[in-house]
Amino acid sequence: MRKISILGSTGSIGTQTLDVIRKYKDIEVVALSADKSVGPITEQIKEFKPRLVCMYSYDAALKLKETIKALGLKTEVVTGIQGLIDCATVPEADMVVTAFVGMIGIRPTIEAIKAGKDIALANKETLVTAGHIIMPLAKEKNVKILPVDSEHSAIFQCLQGEGENKPAAILLTASGGPFRGRKKEELKNIRPEDALKHPNWSMGKKITIDSSTMVNKGLEVMEAKWLFGVEPDNIQVVIQPKSIIHSMIEFTDGAVLAQLGVPDMKLPIQYALYFPERRMPTAERLDFTKLSSIDIFTPDNENFPALPLAYEAIKTGGSMPVVYNAANEAAVRKFLNREIGYLDIVDTIKRMMDKHVVIPDPSLDEVLKIGEETERELSDLHTL
Amino acid sequence: MRKISILGSTGSIGTQTLDVIRKYKDIEVVALSADKSVGPITEQIKEFKPRLVCMYSYDAALKLKETIKALGLKTEVVTGIQGLIDCATVPEADMVVTAFVGMIGIRPTIEAIKAGKDIALANKETLVTAGHIIMPLAKEKNVKILPVDSEHSAIFQCLQGEGENKPAAILLTASGGPFRGRKKEELKNIRPEDALKHPNWSMGKKITIDSSTMVNKGLEVMEAKWLFGVEPDNIQVVIQPKSIIHSMIEFTDGAVLAQLGVPDMKLPIQYALYFPERRMPTAERLDFTKLSSIDIFTPDNENFPALPLAYEAIKTGGSMPVVYNAANEAAVRKFLNREIGYLDIVDTIKRMMDKHVVIPDPSLDEVLKIGEETERELSDLHTL
Repeated sequence: MRKISILGSTGSIGTQTLDVIRKYKDIEVVALSADKSVGPITEQIKEFKPRLVCMYSYDAALKLKETIKALGLKTEVVTGIQGLIDCATVPEADMVVTAFVGMIGIRPTIEAIKAGKDIALANKETLVTAGHIIMPLAKEKNVKILPVDSEHSAIFQCLQGEGENKPAAILLTASGGPFRGRKKEELKNIRPEDALKHPNWSMGKKITIDSSTMVNKGLEVMEAKWLFGVEPDNIQVVIQPKSIIHSMIEFTDGAVLAQLGVPDMKLPIQYALYFPERRMPTAERLDFTKLSSIDIFTPDNENFPALPLAYEAIKTGGSMPVVYNAANEAAVRKFLNREIGYLDIVDTIKRMMDKHVVIPDPSLDEVLKIGEETERELSDLHTL
Repeated sequence: MRKISILGSTGSIGTQTLDVIRKYKDIEVVALSADKSVGPITEQIKEFKPRLVCMYSYDAALKLKETIKALGLKTEVVTGIQGLIDCATVPEADMVVTAFVGMIGIRPTIEAIKAGKDIALANKETLVTAGHIIMPLAKEKNVKILPVDSEHSAIFQCLQGEGENKPAAILLTASGGPFRGRKKEELKNIRPEDALKHPNWSMGKKITIDSSTMVNKGLEVMEAKWLFGVEPDNIQVVIQPKSIIHSMIEFTDGAVLAQLGVPDMKLPIQYALYFPERRMPTAERLDFTKLSSIDIFTPDNENFPALPLAYEAIKTGGSMPVVYNAANEAAVRKFLNREIGYLDIVDTIKRMMDKHVVIPDPSLDEVLKIGEETERELSDLHTL
């Protein structure tokens, strides 16, 4: 029986991962982690009986420990970054699902790879900022990185069986988010509650905001570069509003392979958990008799400058993607707290990138430090 | 160096196969065949210097022999069905491209498989009528059947790397042909020159007519059943007028893999010749910045009854697909000769199917006999 650890088990990807596991009942959950959601994780502990749980927040960890004791459960509770690393390296697990959000994932992911665990990777910020460290390490440790992002899962699926045929180009699809078609003027007064409504996908808060600004697609371009070794000039973003085509690869012969499906994260999650086996769906099937057309557009880079900024960051390379990502993490937090306006998110990224002095090939410590400094400058919260 | 024999080298697929070979210059052409085109095949012989050539027509073979002698070339000339079989089994070849049209391909294809040659299969009528004999034989002889039809090549490409994941459904795309949207009333007076204009694909005459009547898609449904082991109920025809999506597979998990590209037969030909290697294209690339939408429709089975008739034929099984195919071959010939009207083509298929007494699991001799009898009944020509 496959044994897994889920980092970020109370979030959107985490709970959907547990939905898949609940359906088939042939994967053992040995570790879970969450930030501070004591209630939801208590329910998960009761149901899945993991040996180890990390509450990242110390106060929540204390509370959880009491709850667990009162319930007579045997789960061990740990906390903080070392607690996350313990969950990432728990000896029983053969796979770690990195379902948490943000650069917090970097160290646990690296430690999991060092411990030889396969990674079902949903934490794109880790690859964006430390892909140059993680990908060679995974190769060295002979560890699989199985993408959970629907786009990257699509590309990964299309690449199976291609052997020596390297992708000539990646066609990364994007819905364009809820504000596609709007001009900058019309975006100015967007409130968090407006941006939290994605037309197709049900996702966590941060990624939903990122989808609306196109930052998410920018991060995905960087993620694709690291996962598939394709240079940014050969990664083309294609707007496909219905989110039916999840992404495509073009090969040297001009053939394009695409993966399509209903927009449901359980599909790529299930694919990563059971790879290479495909199982019966937990989701609906695409009905081609009801699909009258698949519309395709080019991105509106003028009104949504986050995407060209991302290309600039990844082409500059070195520590620049760290600044892009960290500035966005801090700015999204402030936007959700109503401290800054909607357009300020991408303006903040641009401002921080403009003044950054690039470190080429940054070490892990440098990545973490730049991330921390960028966030600290933008926020009163010291979260990293 | 790979060595191939091309059966039907002066037709559309044959000449495009030679275009691909001419580009890379690393495949040796050891045998060619044609029906009666002495001029074109002479040029091919001069350029590719095959050891063996079959002119199916006896008179043309005599003429070619003289021409070759006059030119001082060493190519040996053979004729008739045995000549085709000689070309199909020529000892030097490791692959045979079956680029000819119609049931004439059955025996040479079977003999090529028996001789251990891989088959690049463009001759769909062979699989339609004798798939129950050919597929088990290919398996037994451990011979690859590499589909050249763009739809089946697409499916074949999508299946690579899927291992034990069997397709749950095939979504076979169709342009709908030049008369999509027309009612039966409007189809009555179609002339050969109208039907010979396909909106997307440049192909031979017979397949162009078959595309306009939807017979071609019917034959492809049957071909797909044999190639991929998917039952007709799980093969869904999807109308996609631009011929951008070349076909799709749905897996058990609901994921759909699709292959897309410009409509150019050189792509699937090249893929079959060099499988599993993909090479630089001989064709244009798809430009997603110019593709505003991919429209999708369901087939119009009322005005184009050839498709439901094909499902009926393959579900009935046994010798019924032979009748479907042979009646069509004869009827298309008569339509091209202006002996019957456009709607008579499919009416003829239906009439011949209605009166046919099915032989379950027909032997090769029975297949050939039913084909011959059906054609003879419909035609004065004794071509089989």
